[in-house]
Amino acid sequence: MTRSVTILGSTGSVGRSTVALLDEAPEGAFRIEALVAHRDVIALAAQARRLGARLAVVADPASYQALCDALSGTGIEAAAGPEAVVAAAARPVDWTMAAIVGAAGLPAILAAVSRGGVLALANKESLVCAGEIVLATARAGGATLLPVDSEHNAIFQALEARGTAADPYATVEKIVLTASGGPCRTMSLAEMASVTPEAAVRHPVWSMGAKISIDSATMMNKGLELIEAVRLFPVPEARVEVLVHPQSTVHGLVQYADGSVVAQLGSPDMRTPIAHALAWPARMMSSVPRLDLVTLGRLDFYAPDPVRFPALRLAREALRAGAGATTILNAANETAVGLFLSRHIGFLDIAAVVEETLTRLGAPEVADLAAILALDGAARVEAARIAAERAAA
Amino acid sequence: MTRSVTILGSTGSVGRSTVALLDEAPEGAFRIEALVAHRDVIALAAQARRLGARLAVVADPASYQALCDALSGTGIEAAAGPEAVVAAAARPVDWTMAAIVGAAGLPAILAAVSRGGVLALANKESLVCAGEIVLATARAGGATLLPVDSEHNAIFQALEARGTAADPYATVEKIVLTASGGPCRTMSLAEMASVTPEAAVRHPVWSMGAKISIDSATMMNKGLELIEAVRLFPVPEARVEVLVHPQSTVHGLVQYADGSVVAQLGSPDMRTPIAHALAWPARMMSSVPRLDLVTLGRLDFYAPDPVRFPALRLAREALRAGAGATTILNAANETAVGLFLSRHIGFLDIAAVVEETLTRLGAPEVADLAAILALDGAARVEAARIAAERAAA
Repeated sequence: MTRSVTILGSTGSVGRSTVALLDEAPEGAFRIEALVAHRDVIALAAQARRLGARLAVVADPASYQALCDALSGTGIEAAAGPEAVVAAAARPVDWTMAAIVGAAGLPAILAAVSRGGVLALANKESLVCAGEIVLATARAGGATLLPVDSEHNAIFQALEARGTAADPYATVEKIVLTASGGPCRTMSLAEMASVTPEAAVRHPVWSMGAKISIDSATMMNKGLELIEAVRLFPVPEARVEVLVHPQSTVHGLVQYADGSVVAQLGSPDMRTPIAHALAWPARMMSSVPRLDLVTLGRLDFYAPDPVRFPALRLAREALRAGAGATTILNAANETAVGLFLSRHIGFLDIAAVVEETLTRLGAPEVADLAAILALDGAARVEAARIAAERAAA
Repeated sequence: MTRSVTILGSTGSVGRSTVALLDEAPEGAFRIEALVAHRDVIALAAQARRLGARLAVVADPASYQALCDALSGTGIEAAAGPEAVVAAAARPVDWTMAAIVGAAGLPAILAAVSRGGVLALANKESLVCAGEIVLATARAGGATLLPVDSEHNAIFQALEARGTAADPYATVEKIVLTASGGPCRTMSLAEMASVTPEAAVRHPVWSMGAKISIDSATMMNKGLELIEAVRLFPVPEARVEVLVHPQSTVHGLVQYADGSVVAQLGSPDMRTPIAHALAWPARMMSSVPRLDLVTLGRLDFYAPDPVRFPALRLAREALRAGAGATTILNAANETAVGLFLSRHIGFLDIAAVVEETLTRLGAPEVADLAAILALDGAARVEAARIAAERAAA
């Protein structure tokens, strides 16, 4: 049975991996409805031609003519602009990859989950900043959310062994997200105070963008993932733990009431969780390097240090505060990371700015997407103000 | 819904753990039909009283009166002798634990699987020595086999994530059994040649009987488990691997075609796999110590050394030879281990005796249980003869 597919964010890292998997899949397994990119028209047109997509959309309206030119003679429909992105996401398909980065992806994600089908979610921000709205819209639309983040995908796989009890999550004692620990794992607090953006983006395992690399260095990435986990899986925050595991081989674990711990492991390659989501509830072939435990030799585990990495505590506090607190956490963190990357504040200021923004703004109610976007903006302004105060002090 | 339960071998190590779990289960979850023991009448009667069993059976006919005395006034039915054991196993129940050690458990296992229900299999020998008959009888009776060996139970749990493809086992690339490596893991071949029974039974992780401890030292235990795995799971021998993992924390792994590896981990405590089998397809609570990866700190993995541990190769050769070869392997090994424990042969002679027995007896056809038991006997005689030749040489 052919599965129809749309990719939101097809020229980014996750989008390219998804295209690579579709490209190596057996003839007839998938049919491509729409590919959506930000502004890389050349790459987008090449993907659309190669996969035989029906529609290619570029978010940047200024790139419309270039896209038309690149697709001329192919019969592939072209469109541009934010409304075209949402319209592409709303077209009925079996499976959608949501890989547009940041809050920019939210309207398209809401359009996709409104019309049902499977949504593979690589956009962490949507669940952190607008989790309840995304989940409620998905429920109303009958959509299934599949996590593509390697940790959450691992937990999803480990939860397949949860069994058939009336409430199978009652026997889930603990969900464990692993963390590489990032480039500051072994640094002292004094070393961390003076770490440069260049040193902080050097992730030991995964090759990623600057923002997420800094989030990994502060462990805020794991804080955001903790929030994502609590939204994705019906398990309270107190039963979600974080374990530092420098080899990033065990991606996530689930502990059951009988003492069993089920885990998913693999090479650090996004094609594995994407392939899992693409084929779910079946499995498909992917040509990723296979895990070789003999060559790896050993796997290490530590408890995260709450003093050097306050981000995990902040994420738990935001979750417990409820309402808009996680929106504030996410916005303040994005702002603070930007200001660290542009050398306006130090590394340790990032968590301090987030904490102070949460203190000042509290946990205001957010009834709809407009309220969330307004709070997101307000938190960015407040975080920038706090950062300026700290830089001046 | 109350699940009716029979335990074959209730006073052994696995039987006692099963009783302990039933004892801590919620009121009304289980009802005990029959408890069967070898000759420990005192322990058997105490279990039967405590759990309110309907029937208690002792295999040793000479213990019948003692059992009747121990149960007098309870209304619990008492019986004794091999036929009573088989009759107890044949009584209809939802769930049976098969924990009678060795080939002695075979007739009762066949009686249990003939009448359907779930059979939790802790008796390794039945699948190694009479695998095809046990499986065919279970198929005919509509019984479900659940492995209780920690490695196979782990793989069973990891296979829960196999997905819903038309042939989900086609996407199972590899099944991995872990091995602690036993007490000889770091010994040289010369040291192994002179190892004493006392040193060889000292297992680093699991506390077990002498026979299985020696099997762990030679790694024949893993060879037998490899045979068991190939019989239990629809995956060919070439796709089953063994990985040395001294901490015995990861009990088994399954590698899928998308690069995912799903594993089950836990403290080395038999109550976890037994609880898994007792509650399957749901899960239940068990008070086993929980796995603590932070305290453990690290997990190590090595490839097994084929020179010092030829048992794995012998198991693979027996599997490939087919027919009665695995019956011969098991019988020759039991004989050789006995002769090592009684100091008639050296440690390295165990595998040598098994190999020579396999060479001399080949892979004769075995049509039924009688043929298997005859071959089992012939292999024991031949192994003893070979051992005597080696001791005399």
